[in-house]
Amino acid sequence: MAIIIDGKSIAEELRAEIRKEVNELKSKTGKLPGLAVILVGENPASQVYVRMKGKACEEVGIVSFQHTLHHDTSQDDLVSLIRTLNAAPEVNGILVQLPLPSHINENAVINAIDPLKDVDGFHPVNVGKMVIGDEDCFYPCTPLGCQELINRYVNDLKGKHLVMVGRSNIVGKPLANMMVQKNKRANCIVTICHTAAADIGYFTRQADILVVAAGKPNTIRGNMVKEGAVVIDVGVNRIENPTDSAKSKLVGDVNFDEVSKVAAAITPVPGGVGPLTITMLLANTLKAFKYHNKIVQ
Amino acid sequence: MAIIIDGKSIAEELRAEIRKEVNELKSKTGKLPGLAVILVGENPASQVYVRMKGKACEEVGIVSFQHTLHHDTSQDDLVSLIRTLNAAPEVNGILVQLPLPSHINENAVINAIDPLKDVDGFHPVNVGKMVIGDEDCFYPCTPLGCQELINRYVNDLKGKHLVMVGRSNIVGKPLANMMVQKNKRANCIVTICHTAAADIGYFTRQADILVVAAGKPNTIRGNMVKEGAVVIDVGVNRIENPTDSAKSKLVGDVNFDEVSKVAAAITPVPGGVGPLTITMLLANTLKAFKYHNKIVQ
Repeated sequence: MAIIIDGKSIAEELRAEIRKEVNELKSKTGKLPGLAVILVGENPASQVYVRMKGKACEEVGIVSFQHTLHHDTSQDDLVSLIRTLNAAPEVNGILVQLPLPSHINENAVINAIDPLKDVDGFHPVNVGKMVIGDEDCFYPCTPLGCQELINRYVNDLKGKHLVMVGRSNIVGKPLANMMVQKNKRANCIVTICHTAAADIGYFTRQADILVVAAGKPNTIRGNMVKEGAVVIDVGVNRIENPTDSAKSKLVGDVNFDEVSKVAAAITPVPGGVGPLTITMLLANTLKAFKYHNKIVQ
Repeated sequence: MAIIIDGKSIAEELRAEIRKEVNELKSKTGKLPGLAVILVGENPASQVYVRMKGKACEEVGIVSFQHTLHHDTSQDDLVSLIRTLNAAPEVNGILVQLPLPSHINENAVINAIDPLKDVDGFHPVNVGKMVIGDEDCFYPCTPLGCQELINRYVNDLKGKHLVMVGRSNIVGKPLANMMVQKNKRANCIVTICHTAAADIGYFTRQADILVVAAGKPNTIRGNMVKEGAVVIDVGVNRIENPTDSAKSKLVGDVNFDEVSKVAAAITPVPGGVGPLTITMLLANTLKAFKYHNKIVQ
């Protein structure tokens, strides 16, 4: 039976460290880090995420500035708000909650964020630096959380075969690029597989480390995992209960019951990767604050 | 016996198309595309490459501006030349020949190039856009040449397993990122393997398409390749003849004699990928010219 990776307690541990550092920096500089979060429209899931981010900021002493814009907000108005925040000294990080309404071009909006305030790590400059291996950048939060978990549960990553299922810009592509770098927290042989594969199991069965961000429950069954693999499940899928909507539940992309019998360690959903994602947003905001205040550590 | 991929004649065909388009654009705009090439120091190999690039420009009607700087040139002076070229309307592409002398920070120099003139595709903005799948960018020349060859020799890339040996910023990482994208010229399952692998053959034997940029002769032997694979050899290694230096010869990273008996198609060295690299530099310069002159096609 696999070890269940307790993302929640790892996240709490990391948040305690961030809180401590924020306090120390406050004594030193008289200032607190600030994160601006922009929400456009009334997507309920986005509202939940934005609220969680605000709460997490509060817990560690980061000031959060929430900007809620009407669904019909024009792209120009959104970009002009971003320009204002780019210039605001009390704002160290800017996050635009995705997805945006369809009349707004996401790339154009992300490109408007000052790369030095892009704590989501989605701006091309940050993506490019991450790929090049220039660490003077922001790494995206979910892959950063996955990397943290992998490093806690795998000894000596050098040459380990990491198979990434999914090629999104938010998880699959950045994590693959981070884990292939020549540094101590990476140095893996990396395979990215996705919907174009005739047989995903052929690839996943080879994985020492299997990361799944496919967006579909049951993508990975027990017979698709090598004995002793470390499995990181990034998926979050809501399964409705047809008779009682209050009893809907969250599941990942991995069949937990089957895979936990084969793997050495596995993240649960919820309580695995999720808590790490917001923690890494806090860590990135702290990094931005130190950068803007020229604090070298 | 494998088909020998004739990079030289494919490059000639592409250059003829570029020449034709340059002529047409000259009639239309009264202008010619311009490429500035900067060489710092007297590295003999770099001198050869710069000369080849100048000659290739001439052949297709691109104006080449060559800037040869002394080995001791300061980083500031180099960056200031780049700023001048960024502002020069007759210059559509800027290329700094690498490697630079050790007192100069390569990243800082590349970052100074206007991304819209970065025809080498090494600026973080271009690397980031490539990864994100935003095609409004410059792709690096050698990977672009490999992609062209792969598309000519493999039908329907969807789901094919491409194994990339090597993780350099010039070839391995960008090609892996290009070939995993969801588009018709890519859509492969991609594995990047490198020096950290205990057994490279384990990965290379799985490849439908094997691309090798390891920088070492004989990295790939006959028993490391699947029957029927398409093999792209990016390596260029000079083997000296101990008794007669004039008889030195170029070889790739792949043992050609052995692998050509197993593969379906293989690039020779020289005459495989090499001629495509400079051709893609010309294509990128033409793309930059059209961009700067707002010519949509």
